[in-house]
Amino acid sequence: MNQIKRPTLILDKDKCQSNISKMVDKANRMGVDFRPHFKTHQSHVIGRWFRDYGTSKITVSSLSMAGYFIGDGWQDVTIAFPFNLREIDLLGELSGKAEINQTILSLYVAEELDKKLRNDIFTWVEIDTGAGRTGLRWNDFDKLDELLEFLKKSVKLNFQGFMVHAGHTYRARLKEEVVFIFDDSMEKLATLKQRYQSLFPGLKISWGDTPSCSILDSLPGVDEIRPGNFVFFDIMQSIIGSCNESDIAVALACPVVALHPERNTVIVYGGGVHLSKDSMILQDGTEIFGKIALPKGDKWESSLKNAYVSSLSQEHGILKIGSEELNRIKDGDLVYILPVHSCMTADLMQSYCLPDGSCIDHMSAKLLKSWH
Amino acid sequence: MNQIKRPTLILDKDKCQSNISKMVDKANRMGVDFRPHFKTHQSHVIGRWFRDYGTSKITVSSLSMAGYFIGDGWQDVTIAFPFNLREIDLLGELSGKAEINQTILSLYVAEELDKKLRNDIFTWVEIDTGAGRTGLRWNDFDKLDELLEFLKKSVKLNFQGFMVHAGHTYRARLKEEVVFIFDDSMEKLATLKQRYQSLFPGLKISWGDTPSCSILDSLPGVDEIRPGNFVFFDIMQSIIGSCNESDIAVALACPVVALHPERNTVIVYGGGVHLSKDSMILQDGTEIFGKIALPKGDKWESSLKNAYVSSLSQEHGILKIGSEELNRIKDGDLVYILPVHSCMTADLMQSYCLPDGSCIDHMSAKLLKSWH
Repeated sequence: MNQIKRPTLILDKDKCQSNISKMVDKANRMGVDFRPHFKTHQSHVIGRWFRDYGTSKITVSSLSMAGYFIGDGWQDVTIAFPFNLREIDLLGELSGKAEINQTILSLYVAEELDKKLRNDIFTWVEIDTGAGRTGLRWNDFDKLDELLEFLKKSVKLNFQGFMVHAGHTYRARLKEEVVFIFDDSMEKLATLKQRYQSLFPGLKISWGDTPSCSILDSLPGVDEIRPGNFVFFDIMQSIIGSCNESDIAVALACPVVALHPERNTVIVYGGGVHLSKDSMILQDGTEIFGKIALPKGDKWESSLKNAYVSSLSQEHGILKIGSEELNRIKDGDLVYILPVHSCMTADLMQSYCLPDGSCIDHMSAKLLKSWH
Repeated sequence: MNQIKRPTLILDKDKCQSNISKMVDKANRMGVDFRPHFKTHQSHVIGRWFRDYGTSKITVSSLSMAGYFIGDGWQDVTIAFPFNLREIDLLGELSGKAEINQTILSLYVAEELDKKLRNDIFTWVEIDTGAGRTGLRWNDFDKLDELLEFLKKSVKLNFQGFMVHAGHTYRARLKEEVVFIFDDSMEKLATLKQRYQSLFPGLKISWGDTPSCSILDSLPGVDEIRPGNFVFFDIMQSIIGSCNESDIAVALACPVVALHPERNTVIVYGGGVHLSKDSMILQDGTEIFGKIALPKGDKWESSLKNAYVSSLSQEHGILKIGSEELNRIKDGDLVYILPVHSCMTADLMQSYCLPDGSCIDHMSAKLLKSWH
């Protein structure tokens, strides 16, 4: 740790592998297929840890990411992102190398794919059950009928079922809210399943999101789960209730560059370009950009009770810390920031360091950042 | 533009060079030294455009960035960031290659530098006149006396003056507020100048921030300015009043991947990992993550009146667009997002494309993102 000179994302491999193994076990116990979302880690090495636990199907959020993982031997990949017509050549190329599952949201895109693709792919229709981001509304039967009838006729676009990302669980703070969202979504999906079962007898339900996959004990009606964030977890998930803070597997090690005890402030080298500007509003109205932990051996302690990241500039992190804890910190020390949203922090940092000093790949490694 | 497949940061070179030339002219007219902050663009090529307009001194926000620009021939560099004791070897190396100006905030750091550096450097003391981020409080005379007396005795740490980043101008929405912040800060700095002028007869005032350098007609008492964002500007600056929206020189070109006219929503490929999660709250309470413009030739039109980026996921951008404008957009089209905070967007995108298809370097190029 003494060799860390600049903001560095530290990965606790034990915690990460434990998070993976627990979710694998849970999927087995619930009898659902496990297709974890790899957009959180974007790493070949971490992907292989999943493989060691028996995972063979994955989810990604872009065709570029699909290519990255197909390049490491993954043979069954779902792209859980509306198809981008400008990448039809890349989809063609990838579908020649692996089994591709692509979400489809519109007849126009389906027609274009059917016309222009040479290989067959599997397709899923994304349904919005209330999150309000992407997906066809579960009761937009005009559009659904039209699209599913087209998919029925298409030889290339093998329809598999409905895909849901119930992103509104991220706003939940009680288990009961997550239960409500799940039950409500599954009722809507049951209507759909009934409507289209004669057309597609084997149609499946693929279910996303870390909160429901972590918090709920069973997921009746679901055939496949696609959680992603659980591989690292983060402060947001600990506040939602998906994990304990001690399950969080990544922390940004930041050098302390200024102390302002008169205003309970510590400035670290580590800002928005490292951590991302994701924040959460606590129940008392405080906006936090991360929690703070002090070093312990080559990892980190429990987070400081009386402390949080209060704002971020491009390279500055502004930490508010109670006087007693602040007295334990001096210029040149390292502090650890537990991120609000680990997917974004990992994407920005683009590599992981293990406490032993070795590094792990991230798809978008900022190679030039290590110019010296 | 038809070749754009994925989110791409487009740079309008004419606007960028015009922004540079106007700020150079203004600094000349005001009789202040011009030391632009290069953290916004982080690009050798754009740096050379400044050089073409006569710029010879620059500001950066990290030692890594100093090294990047020294590597392109810059010989006079200010690191406007509290010194990070873990990088003392790198500072030693860089100070052998160029004139380094380093901000210092504490006696402890000054003592360490004085003890361990072999080369001389210039030093500046950062003063907080009200922004509340970094810097010694302007009236913390105990600490200031102690630090400045030490710097007076030090042979290596040649004290130059006081550096201010009046970041609270970013919260201003009226010219009068910026005038107030400037006048208030300069009164505080005048007190300091008077107090320490006998110790340091030639001490200078270095002044940062794009809003005041853009909005104010003169900066009496200031010796040097360090604006950065003006090279591109962004939606935040247009709302503050530093620029017109037509001065904004960068926009993120994003493929349209889904249309939801029933809820006035368009989904683009382009999310938090491309644009950053910086947002602004408009006067009516709406939180926006960017404004939206449609293509015009190989650039973009004025922003759509009835439209904004309402939220961002990792790769999804969720746009709210009035029905009339939405009818002009279809799957596979490109739309342009004018960023709320161009520094962060550029850092995430890590390269610039000109409308002719050529690309410009960014210090932290995501080389692996173009794996295929």
